Amino acid sequence: MGRALRSGQLHEQLLPKRIALPVFASDALSSVAYAPQEILVILSLAGVSFYSFSPWVAIAVVVVMLTVVASYRQNVHAYPSGGGDYEVATTNLGKNAGLTVASALMVDYVLTVAVSVANGVDYVGATIPFVGQHKPAVAIVIVVLLTVVNLRGIRESGAAFAIPTYAFMISVLGLIAWGGFRLLVLHENIEAPSAHFTIEPEQHNLTAFAAAFLVLRAFSSGCAALTGVEAISNGVPAFRKPKSRNAATTLLMMGLVAITMFSGIIALGLASGVKVAEPSVVAEDLLRPDGTPVGPGYYQQPIISQVADAVFGGGSVPFIVISAVTALILFLAANTAFNGFPVLGSILAQDRYLPRQLHTRGDRLAFSNGIIILALGACLLLWGFQADVSRLLNLYIVGVFVSFTLSQTGMVIHWTRHLKTEADPRVRHQMHRSRVINFFGGVMTGLVLIVVLLTKFLVGAWIVVIAMPILFLMMKGIRRHYDKVAAELELTEDYEPAMLPARNHTIVLVSKLHKPTMRALAYARATRPSTLEAITVGVEGDEARKLQEEWERRGIPVPLKMLDSPYREITQPILDYVKTLRRRSPRDVVTVFIPEYVVGHWWEHLLHNQSALRLKARLLFKPGVMVTSVPWQLHSSDRLQGRPEPFAPGAVRRPWHQTVKEESQLADKRP
Amino acid sequence: MGRALRSGQLHEQLLPKRIALPVFASDALSSVAYAPQEILVILSLAGVSFYSFSPWVAIAVVVVMLTVVASYRQNVHAYPSGGGDYEVATTNLGKNAGLTVASALMVDYVLTVAVSVANGVDYVGATIPFVGQHKPAVAIVIVVLLTVVNLRGIRESGAAFAIPTYAFMISVLGLIAWGGFRLLVLHENIEAPSAHFTIEPEQHNLTAFAAAFLVLRAFSSGCAALTGVEAISNGVPAFRKPKSRNAATTLLMMGLVAITMFSGIIALGLASGVKVAEPSVVAEDLLRPDGTPVGPGYYQQPIISQVADAVFGGGSVPFIVISAVTALILFLAANTAFNGFPVLGSILAQDRYLPRQLHTRGDRLAFSNGIIILALGACLLLWGFQADVSRLLNLYIVGVFVSFTLSQTGMVIHWTRHLKTEADPRVRHQMHRSRVINFFGGVMTGLVLIVVLLTKFLVGAWIVVIAMPILFLMMKGIRRHYDKVAAELELTEDYEPAMLPARNHTIVLVSKLHKPTMRALAYARATRPSTLEAITVGVEGDEARKLQEEWERRGIPVPLKMLDSPYREITQPILDYVKTLRRRSPRDVVTVFIPEYVVGHWWEHLLHNQSALRLKARLLFKPGVMVTSVPWQLHSSDRLQGRPEPFAPGAVRRPWHQTVKEESQLADKRP
Repeated sequence: MGRALRSGQLHEQLLPKRIALPVFASDALSSVAYAPQEILVILSLAGVSFYSFSPWVAIAVVVVMLTVVASYRQNVHAYPSGGGDYEVATTNLGKNAGLTVASALMVDYVLTVAVSVANGVDYVGATIPFVGQHKPAVAIVIVVLLTVVNLRGIRESGAAFAIPTYAFMISVLGLIAWGGFRLLVLHENIEAPSAHFTIEPEQHNLTAFAAAFLVLRAFSSGCAALTGVEAISNGVPAFRKPKSRNAATTLLMMGLVAITMFSGIIALGLASGVKVAEPSVVAEDLLRPDGTPVGPGYYQQPIISQVADAVFGGGSVPFIVISAVTALILFLAANTAFNGFPVLGSILAQDRYLPRQLHTRGDRLAFSNGIIILALGACLLLWGFQADVSRLLNLYIVGVFVSFTLSQTGMVIHWTRHLKTEADPRVRHQMHRSRVINFFGGVMTGLVLIVVLLTKFLVGAWIVVIAMPILFLMMKGIRRHYDKVAAELELTEDYEPAMLPARNHTIVLVSKLHKPTMRALAYARATRPSTLEAITVGVEGDEARKLQEEWERRGIPVPLKMLDSPYREITQPILDYVKTLRRRSPRDVVTVFIPEYVVGHWWEHLLHNQSALRLKARLLFKPGVMVTSVPWQLHSSDRLQGRPEPFAPGAVRRPWHQTVKEESQLADKRP
Repeated sequence: MGRALRSGQLHEQLLPKRIALPVFASDALSSVAYAPQEILVILSLAGVSFYSFSPWVAIAVVVVMLTVVASYRQNVHAYPSGGGDYEVATTNLGKNAGLTVASALMVDYVLTVAVSVANGVDYVGATIPFVGQHKPAVAIVIVVLLTVVNLRGIRESGAAFAIPTYAFMISVLGLIAWGGFRLLVLHENIEAPSAHFTIEPEQHNLTAFAAAFLVLRAFSSGCAALTGVEAISNGVPAFRKPKSRNAATTLLMMGLVAITMFSGIIALGLASGVKVAEPSVVAEDLLRPDGTPVGPGYYQQPIISQVADAVFGGGSVPFIVISAVTALILFLAANTAFNGFPVLGSILAQDRYLPRQLHTRGDRLAFSNGIIILALGACLLLWGFQADVSRLLNLYIVGVFVSFTLSQTGMVIHWTRHLKTEADPRVRHQMHRSRVINFFGGVMTGLVLIVVLLTKFLVGAWIVVIAMPILFLMMKGIRRHYDKVAAELELTEDYEPAMLPARNHTIVLVSKLHKPTMRALAYARATRPSTLEAITVGVEGDEARKLQEEWERRGIPVPLKMLDSPYREITQPILDYVKTLRRRSPRDVVTVFIPEYVVGHWWEHLLHNQSALRLKARLLFKPGVMVTSVPWQLHSSDRLQGRPEPFAPGAVRRPWHQTVKEESQLADKRP
């Protein structure tokens, strides 16, 4: 055990704030790569004149973000266990609310991958034209690469998060600072490449209602900036002590950085005259200074690249670095989803909403299946929406705000419950304050959710509205099944163990006389059974006779019984024979020893053990029968001996799964 | 055993000639539905004037067919065991020749399905226009239907073969008789619907060489009439006694019927002025009487339908019946391939060229995999060649003639070998005669093979020329692997069984205290092991403690050991513990009892046993460890109890797999 501890030490290092920030913030910060742009894109549907609404929309988004950050600071204090929205909703609002949050999170993971990769490809395309021309294909290739990397298993480290995240923060904050300096101090003019373009409106002569609807839709898209804000609340136990305070401070830092970036980019975008149209109508609606449409050959650069072009000049080193770093943090955010998805699966499996084996760590198969499902979903979306970030965002924000709203509502109930028992007036005051903040957060995010649903339902959100209940019902069904089985297996209080089986009849299955057979015979004899016989099924007359002869010649001290199989079948004669044994002495138990080959290559499974496995599956249907596999290790199996377990996903973010605390707790209770 | 015999009686009925003919001839006879037409189609590439070559081409095909029938009559006498081309080639020419035949046969099964279904759809399209307009899709739907039917398992019966085959024979022979009567006796004029059409040649002003090449190519396509002729030689044991003579007679009958049909159809086709162009150029090259191309809307009816139209009138009842019965026998031929493919797989598996489990009957999984592979291959071809029979035939005949040629060559060697030892002059004379026939057959089919390869290589045969060696090498590789493993496992003559393990340490794996656990404990105790302990892995601190308490409260007479798992892993702590036990007493054996759930639905496998299976797979890598599954039958497993084994494929054609003879042979040798 001491050794296991040492091998795990890396995971147990708790994170200082300067590392925790990048580990948990990549997702939230990366969303400023697309959120400001989407506000402009939606407004542009009514023409460039609507850009004048964008500062107000941005302010609204900032207000929501501040509210959400403030709200989650309360979560962090109330749930230092790092429960996350699922735990908060389950504890305070019940299982169905928790499952709703879980469904929303699962959908969101898929969308995080799709949106982040699609937008990352936009930024790569800003410097590599080929990529810009083949966006959906490149995006899918990147998802496949992420999948392969994650299937092979990667050891996470703080540095892998810290370097790209800080590079992104420095680049973008530097861009904003230098841009602001040029504008405000040097009074220089900065011009984006699309500064002199205009946009032909898709919607003309809007009624007041339609205009308001469009502005609200722009606000909905802008709220994409909030995705990922909740990450820190899931990771409190990963922080150094005092955990909650450090986590709350980091959350605030992250919020401030995100707000600065978001506001700075949209301000510089407007100041430099960035024009961005919806990708599907760019070719016709975006007009060059001479009034002609840009046509299908035009590549609409994403907003940070355009701003970098305006501030540093297109093709300059800073321009390339900023575009590259932005792409990098977006891919990192996508990779975070690959790590987070199995962790969520593990939590849900613990509550038996997903197959149990997802709960235990290092089940490579289950883990791989999760990754593949995630990747397939993301690829499907990328292909279906042609890696168009604007259209993908129509699906994205529903899930995020469902979990925000339920989490905040849950927190209000949490405080109300605690207020009933809390006496200390100082603490009560604190709780009242927290409840107000959470209440405000819940109302705010609930309103945003309604706005998002209203403005985006027809353009894509309906897909999520269908997918979430399907996931919800699937998880409910799994839980119901497990509950049914548990009831079936339950030991009643008056349960008396049945009488011990009287005797143990053993059968060794023989196909040929070779080393695995000899080992199976020796092991079967070592169990000192009541009776022991070897059984073979005479499929080929010749082979059966030869086996019989060799058996006698070698003087093997176990009787060999030959079962006839007129229909060249192996399973049925053995099943019939076992049935006969059972009928003869129903109080006894029958053990069937099957020699099994242990192989080293996947394709060897196709060539060996198939009949044995089939027989075993059939034998297990018979009550009173045990099946014992006696392994024979083929040379090829050596290569798999001692192969290490794969790395656990999300290890950096969730170190408390293996904290020393829990372990020592266990040690105390040890017999 | 008596009971098993009774349940198998249906299979054991040997076939009288009148049933054997349809059982084995559906494939061969169905090929007259397309072979005559293909001669005309290829010749039409040089214009209708080349149709004058068609009688000569037909005569050449008939000569080849007579030769092949005569040759296989020799096979039937020499190999009454029904060895088929694979056995003949293996025995006389060696393993590589046998494997070559096997590869050719495998490719041919796929092509039989594709060609037969595509042509069957042609005939359905003759009466149902919708089908004619959606040929590839309909063909794939029919393959899928055949797949589903065969996956579910169908019991074969002689009647299922006899009714469609005799209906086809009566219809087509009646058509020929009535058409001949009208032409020769009544001196009436019969006119196919395309009688007054002409065909614009694809190839103009052919050189003598090019013309000869085209005629040879037409001959190659016409040789498609020979596919399936060898079927009877595989089925001799299914005949009543005297088996060989009856089989030879049936073969001759089949050959004569096929030749009559083939010649009659082509003669009536020419007499009624049928014009058929290659499907890919029909729209442009087939010209109406007024000289305009028929255009893409024209449906080119297949030759038997056109002749039936000429003789009985289009849309008449006989026309519809003949088209329907022709389609039916073609689908029956496709179904025959579905039955034959697993049978071939079984023979190859016996020689360890394919996974062993294919050999034993009723392995639904292996059987299903074979059917699915066959169906996928056929669908791929149907889609790739748009269900165009003319193009599919370019691939078809290579494999057939590879096996013909190798089989006949093998027979020459067979007779030569027997002549060395045979003394009886009457028998020697017979053998000399057989050898001449087989020699002639071998040379003839070899020449046809060369012609086929030369004329069709570039238009499709190359695909088969690539596929066959791939299959060949795969099967060689599988055999090499099995041989390697067999050598690894072989008992040397001086092999002394190792000392018996001294003691048996047993471990019962416990996750919860429920009925399966109690059963596992009871069974483990029934094996009276040297030591026995229950093991649990403490993943959740609380659960582990509760388990411990309940264990003590219930006074279970087996010590419970708690293994710590700081990393929430189940497998590794158990592996480590077993390793410790083994190290402490290396001469003992360790048995791990794992409670396993037996479930009734496929999806339940995803929810149960996964951790157990994973642990088991890892434990088997450790020498000196046995793993015992103690089943617990969940209620849902009741529905699978006693589910019967699926029907064996090809049962009617290969009854000798379960003849009474072999069984009684076995009974004699019984101890």
